[in-house]
Amino acid sequence: MGKFAKNQWYAAAWLSELGDTPLARRILDEPVVLFRQKHGSVAALMDRCPHRLVPLSMGTVVDRGIQCGYHGMVFDGKGQCAHIPGQSTIPPRAVVRSYPIAERYGMAWIWMGEADLADPALLPQVPHFGDEGWALIDGGYQHHPSSYLNIVENLMDPAHTTFVHKQTIGNPAAASEPVKMEKSDEHIVAYKWLRNSRPSPMDVQIKDFGDQLVDRGQFFYFMIPSVSRVDIITMPAGLEPIEENFNKGLRNNSYKFLTPETETTTHFFWMHLRNYKVGDQEWAQRMRGIFEKTFLEDRDIEMAMQRSQDELGVRQFVALEIDRAPTIALKMIDRLVKDEAKAGESVAA
Amino acid sequence: MGKFAKNQWYAAAWLSELGDTPLARRILDEPVVLFRQKHGSVAALMDRCPHRLVPLSMGTVVDRGIQCGYHGMVFDGKGQCAHIPGQSTIPPRAVVRSYPIAERYGMAWIWMGEADLADPALLPQVPHFGDEGWALIDGGYQHHPSSYLNIVENLMDPAHTTFVHKQTIGNPAAASEPVKMEKSDEHIVAYKWLRNSRPSPMDVQIKDFGDQLVDRGQFFYFMIPSVSRVDIITMPAGLEPIEENFNKGLRNNSYKFLTPETETTTHFFWMHLRNYKVGDQEWAQRMRGIFEKTFLEDRDIEMAMQRSQDELGVRQFVALEIDRAPTIALKMIDRLVKDEAKAGESVAA
Amino acid sequence: MGKFAKNQWYAAAWLSELGDTPLARRILDEPVVLFRQKHGSVAALMDRCPHRLVPLSMGTVVDRGIQCGYHGMVFDGKGQCAHIPGQSTIPPRAVVRSYPIAERYGMAWIWMGEADLADPALLPQVPHFGDEGWALIDGGYQHHPSSYLNIVENLMDPAHTTFVHKQTIGNPAAASEPVKMEKSDEHIVAYKWLRNSRPSPMDVQIKDFGDQLVDRGQFFYFMIPSVSRVDIITMPAGLEPIEENFNKGLRNNSYKFLTPETETTTHFFWMHLRNYKVGDQEWAQRMRGIFEKTFLEDRDIEMAMQRSQDELGVRQFVALEIDRAPTIALKMIDRLVKDEAKAGESVAA
Repeated sequence: MGKFAKNQWYAAAWLSELGDTPLARRILDEPVVLFRQKHGSVAALMDRCPHRLVPLSMGTVVDRGIQCGYHGMVFDGKGQCAHIPGQSTIPPRAVVRSYPIAERYGMAWIWMGEADLADPALLPQVPHFGDEGWALIDGGYQHHPSSYLNIVENLMDPAHTTFVHKQTIGNPAAASEPVKMEKSDEHIVAYKWLRNSRPSPMDVQIKDFGDQLVDRGQFFYFMIPSVSRVDIITMPAGLEPIEENFNKGLRNNSYKFLTPETETTTHFFWMHLRNYKVGDQEWAQRMRGIFEKTFLEDRDIEMAMQRSQDELGVRQFVALEIDRAPTIALKMIDRLVKDEAKAGESVAA
Repeated sequence: MGKFAKNQWYAAAWLSELGDTPLARRILDEPVVLFRQKHGSVAALMDRCPHRLVPLSMGTVVDRGIQCGYHGMVFDGKGQCAHIPGQSTIPPRAVVRSYPIAERYGMAWIWMGEADLADPALLPQVPHFGDEGWALIDGGYQHHPSSYLNIVENLMDPAHTTFVHKQTIGNPAAASEPVKMEKSDEHIVAYKWLRNSRPSPMDVQIKDFGDQLVDRGQFFYFMIPSVSRVDIITMPAGLEPIEENFNKGLRNNSYKFLTPETETTTHFFWMHLRNYKVGDQEWAQRMRGIFEKTFLEDRDIEMAMQRSQDELGVRQFVALEIDRAPTIALKMIDRLVKDEAKAGESVAA
Repeated sequence: MGKFAKNQWYAAAWLSELGDTPLARRILDEPVVLFRQKHGSVAALMDRCPHRLVPLSMGTVVDRGIQCGYHGMVFDGKGQCAHIPGQSTIPPRAVVRSYPIAERYGMAWIWMGEADLADPALLPQVPHFGDEGWALIDGGYQHHPSSYLNIVENLMDPAHTTFVHKQTIGNPAAASEPVKMEKSDEHIVAYKWLRNSRPSPMDVQIKDFGDQLVDRGQFFYFMIPSVSRVDIITMPAGLEPIEENFNKGLRNNSYKFLTPETETTTHFFWMHLRNYKVGDQEWAQRMRGIFEKTFLEDRDIEMAMQRSQDELGVRQFVALEIDRAPTIALKMIDRLVKDEAKAGESVAA
């Protein structure tokens, strides 16, 4: 592997990051500048002035687009040159590549592949986003110096939580419980369903369970190209484990939108939806802190893996039973990349 | 390109940098040690003891030259070994390459090519240096992590000042004024001559112009191998723009002596001469501060360009009209490098 | 050169470094984790879980060995997998390489080559270790970013002390005294014997010599693979310079155990034995400080040499008379490396 699926939407930035100042962000190993145009919508251009290759992100947003900070060339949101100071003719090569952008869920989503294929219907789905009775924590961002493939594996792997997240969301009782898996055309999901279990350290901070046992579900969804949804449910023991019962308990939906920065580094965007303690800002702050810490625990592991992979040129020496879901997720990515390569060859032929 | 013209004088150090301690400085990608000999003149040697390759700059200046800090070998200013502790015979290979040095304008100038060709008559000219009625700001040094070629382009390019130096020497009125150019065998100069213009933000700090308009000249000289002189004149509107009139106004002569450290990093030496506020130390301090800031603004742009060039392997995608003078300057450097290569081949043949 | 002699004992860690937490240390360019097992002895494994390549040093020491911090796999001190959470079968490839360890002189010694050849009788000898009338300073460690070969040369080279260690153990009187050398099958030793000399700056801090002159010996031993013993003796002038007289004076035995981290960086372990001021903790502290400073002076020189060697691809341009002992030491290492390579080929054939 080591290529990217380009004809996909990737999280590029939180809209809150896009104010008066252009934002530079490397995405799928290309330098991108993101900025909110004066007339409102977000634009994304390759972050290189075609003149002297100065990053446009060092310039300023102006009425007609973005102005290079070196000689003042102005490019509009489509990458067309709108102005060259001291020169009336605009040379044909004075253009910059532009990328389709969609704004949804408080984020700017970027399409790094063929612009014609950029269909907003293909954006990820986030159920309950904006619904009453649900609270949102958003704006989460971390830089993980590891391949997004390592992070996908991590996110599809319920088994690691006991060991990596001892102090946060881990639960020793879960360690010996085997992982189950389901797969459809749209997604795969690995999950554990623990009946008559002790609530997690986090659960007991939400509610006093006393000695009461619970059923506890951990669903780890993977959706192409690199979206993770972890659905954690703690509900009264004994109810049938189906969607309509899930909202009767405590429910946490944790999303990660992974955007490859390079082959070995990743933009890690996260948001969280919950169906309890809505409006409790103090709780939200505590939770944000716990998640940040949890994801940094993962980052440390992923970073160390990346260094080992860089040195050894392989990803692993032995496979375990818990690798089934991660392996399938990686194959789905591999398939996307290969299909794009094949399609590219057909077009070329 | 990517080689250097070696048979040229380059600024190596300010004389004020050369006290009791040897100075290590990489020049044209060679390690050099500079030191003031006990008998007075400055010497330059390759910064490697031939024994164990320890930099001589880690040693000390002694009566007979410089003494290596590891085993005490002493080399004189010509690179000959004058002493080996505990050993009476000096092996023939116990020599270090030495470089010709000239001292002028408060600087040590180094000749990295064939020593026989090092003629002090080829040193750069700095008119008005030491003249009465002129004040000097010297000792300017910055490290610019970018090829000297990018800096030459920048210095031959009046068009960028409006955008890069908004807060210092920039002048929005100049943006739309086209650049003119003259070229002789000795130099090229790109310039703008703005008639009936508002004085610059800096000019009005020197003198109260009231509503009076001025003629304003910006002359950007390039002299081989990599010397820049920017001659900025603000004089009463309407006088003939000739040398004898220039000193009637405010005149700033800003020099930059670029010395390649490596192919992608540069020693940026600067000095400044002015024909007003002579003896005003407070003004000199303010000016020094403004220049430092201005050149750091350039440095940030040049640094970003270098990173883009490193990644893309090209220098630009589209040429503008303002590139004429920079392009000629770079061709002059290229010619120097090629002529040296050709001369080297002739000698070899 | 540039390979390592693997069938040798190398200092891996001070035992005091091995508590509850695993210790990661790169040795002969392999990642190693060291830990003290619950049942007592020290174990060393390659620092990679065979599953996802996460360093085992990020895990924790448990009853049966070391547990990976990612998915909880447990490996015993021999590298055998003892437990996989949630999985009953242990795949044959779930093993980690283990390295023989010997504990002596307060250190863990590691054998990076063929385990069958790891004979504790081959450990270095440290006379007077633990003897009455001798005081020990141990726990010394520095990281030297230079090849161990450069450090071996430095340690076999009495001539440099005058110049590098002016402020500590240096003695100008020694500069012109030639170095002598003896060699047996087990070791080589370079030495100076200074008769009727002034005591060193350090000596006079130990004892008031008044105007009394001394005989002063500096013996620089090298023992394969990369052990240095510097035996410094200051005794009343005129006695016969033989072992039985040496203890009559002030005697300092300084040991360095060099362990290549990579080809260009080295773990520098040191300890010191002395036959005076036993029990004087204040003195020991001062001495420790002086040694640390001395070895950092050497480190700076070695580091600079390494950079020069990296750039030039050679080790030196001219040899001096003082290079004899260092040259022989390096040849002994070279011979070890070549003999191992030859033995490897025989086995292969």
